[in-house]
Amino acid sequence: MMQSVGADPEVRAALERVRPHPDAEEALARVSWSVLTEPGDGVAGALIAESGAVSALESALGGGTLAGSDVGGQALSEARARWAPRANAHRVVDAIRGAADVGARLLLPGDALWPNSLDDLGVHAPTLLWVRGDPALLTGAIRVAIVGARAASAYGEMLAGDFAGELAAGGAVVVSGGAYGIDGAAHRAALGVGGNTVAFLAGGVDRAYPQGHQQLLRRIVETGAVVSEVPCGTAPTKWRFLSRNRLIAALSDATVVVEAGWRSGSLNTAGHAAALGRPLGAVPGPVTSASSAGCHRLLREYDARCVTTTAEIRELWGEVVSGGSTATTSDPDRSRLLDALSSRAPRPVLELSRRSGLAPERIGSLLGLLELDGVVTRIESGWQKRREGERRG
Amino acid sequence: MMQSVGADPEVRAALERVRPHPDAEEALARVSWSVLTEPGDGVAGALIAESGAVSALESALGGGTLAGSDVGGQALSEARARWAPRANAHRVVDAIRGAADVGARLLLPGDALWPNSLDDLGVHAPTLLWVRGDPALLTGAIRVAIVGARAASAYGEMLAGDFAGELAAGGAVVVSGGAYGIDGAAHRAALGVGGNTVAFLAGGVDRAYPQGHQQLLRRIVETGAVVSEVPCGTAPTKWRFLSRNRLIAALSDATVVVEAGWRSGSLNTAGHAAALGRPLGAVPGPVTSASSAGCHRLLREYDARCVTTTAEIRELWGEVVSGGSTATTSDPDRSRLLDALSSRAPRPVLELSRRSGLAPERIGSLLGLLELDGVVTRIESGWQKRREGERRG
Repeated sequence: MMQSVGADPEVRAALERVRPHPDAEEALARVSWSVLTEPGDGVAGALIAESGAVSALESALGGGTLAGSDVGGQALSEARARWAPRANAHRVVDAIRGAADVGARLLLPGDALWPNSLDDLGVHAPTLLWVRGDPALLTGAIRVAIVGARAASAYGEMLAGDFAGELAAGGAVVVSGGAYGIDGAAHRAALGVGGNTVAFLAGGVDRAYPQGHQQLLRRIVETGAVVSEVPCGTAPTKWRFLSRNRLIAALSDATVVVEAGWRSGSLNTAGHAAALGRPLGAVPGPVTSASSAGCHRLLREYDARCVTTTAEIRELWGEVVSGGSTATTSDPDRSRLLDALSSRAPRPVLELSRRSGLAPERIGSLLGLLELDGVVTRIESGWQKRREGERRG
Repeated sequence: MMQSVGADPEVRAALERVRPHPDAEEALARVSWSVLTEPGDGVAGALIAESGAVSALESALGGGTLAGSDVGGQALSEARARWAPRANAHRVVDAIRGAADVGARLLLPGDALWPNSLDDLGVHAPTLLWVRGDPALLTGAIRVAIVGARAASAYGEMLAGDFAGELAAGGAVVVSGGAYGIDGAAHRAALGVGGNTVAFLAGGVDRAYPQGHQQLLRRIVETGAVVSEVPCGTAPTKWRFLSRNRLIAALSDATVVVEAGWRSGSLNTAGHAAALGRPLGAVPGPVTSASSAGCHRLLREYDARCVTTTAEIRELWGEVVSGGSTATTSDPDRSRLLDALSSRAPRPVLELSRRSGLAPERIGSLLGLLELDGVVTRIESGWQKRREGERRG
């Protein structure tokens, strides 16, 4: 039985290293769940929500139907059929030892540092998280996901770096997926300004994926956090990449897609963000660039917000940035009078009235204001615009 | 009095040339209104709507209040004060002769060729239109406004040309403002494919503005139409450019801004389109390009639709374009099974079950389908993915 592994003193010692809490039974049950299931298994999530990880595991590995459960008999028998081939105590032991070997911490729902935002995923929430680095980064400060295509252009990588650097310098935690292209540029920029960054991996936290980001991921572990819901030793697969994307979206206060091809995986992350009601931003680019096509699709089909600056990204979570007001105060009459004035020849009020279509009285009062502003000057019988160089103030 | 000009045989002859209809009194009254007022004068529009152009002109030039009018006494006296300096019969005569000299036609509300879409402007609708070229282009076919910055980039001019050329080749009438930059590129492309294009001018149709577009405007007159609501001899002013923009927006079934600076006049056209409930599209560009900043602003602040292709522009007026489906049919279980399969080593069902987290029965049925699709092959005791080159079909 899988539950029996807790009796092994060596396993207990390894568990102590990944989780120095006196809840070994709960921890072992959840690690068991994580080896039995693929990420986001809704039947497992429902069973655990109903009766807790420990009891649910017993029912799952036992037989018979579950009285009073929302999980129907057929769904349960199908689930048992897919879990059974993995019901092996060695897998649980390997997961814990593998984590202990790389200094990963086991984070469980209910922990003070557990990111409650993940609970918005309902029955698809992760059963646990493996964290290398600082788990405190998953809660507290604003977290913003900067994601995008692996096959990014120089334009996309530059913007990802600019945005991530400025956001991280401002105290936000930059969340991404550790991939080549946009993800890597975002992580690197956050590290570069001494800021915080979190990488969610699709495989185990003991595996550097992609291989070429071994050093980058090592640097993230040092000052940030590398996180996964799958056990150490697990390879990333297409399914696990897609599942991992829901964690990036759910953890983050906002998700920004910097560059994405028409079928980029980051559209999947964006879809999760939209489904969770999280603010979603997309950075536009040239319509001639294939690596911006996905962003334009997000603007068209996902109602993503068009973001072009770091300030606009901050607005996604309601941060109001002062300065750079966009208000334009323009009095149409003033504009019409200015049209009618010349800067070369003085014109009398009646001529200004004919040219502008404004009443002479209105022109009189407007001219007074324009004179105060230093925009016009009276010359003998007429009024004339001052040239730029002559203006006061 | 302004109304007396109709008695002059020479004026009648000129009027006959710009408008071969037996409604000289109505025509003269509306031309009088157009010389008395600046474009979009709401008081004039309200008076004309209430009692017709002829009677309204008499009341406007007379004294006293108007019994039963919605126009209040103060608004009326202010309006009279701004109209009075222009109440000059010579101006009416000049407008008609000027139009006759360049072969312009006078179009009035109620005419068979009058574009009723302009009536959506309510009291700000134009009192008349001067048209050089084919007035039939203002009604009938789909009209799409392609507008944007004068200071356009090569990117913007290329796209304006691509879109306008394809739309015009498809039978749409390309509407724009005759300016340098985006407007000019749109007109030119429409002419280039032998399509139809309409230029709305802020000054009189007898004046080529900008001067550098004299030849372009002459070509538009030959096969398209050059249109204005202000009398011949009238110079374009900033106010008249802004007023002209409402006509472009109201005439067109959709408005597309290709490139625009942060304070570009084409945002004004876009604002009119949005206020009128006309579909509004904005073409994105690099966030590093100042000439796309206005388009991004439209996406953020005006709820403009992001358009990147001619097909997407056509969708603005509900034209559904077939082909290029974006639907992706993906069965998550199939995806998980493909992740678990190798193309180098055959794997038995139970191993595939452990790797994928799918039940062995489910895997059995999926493998059958994948084998039919030629994606997998059975080798001795296991299953293996075929390499791309080996696949059927």
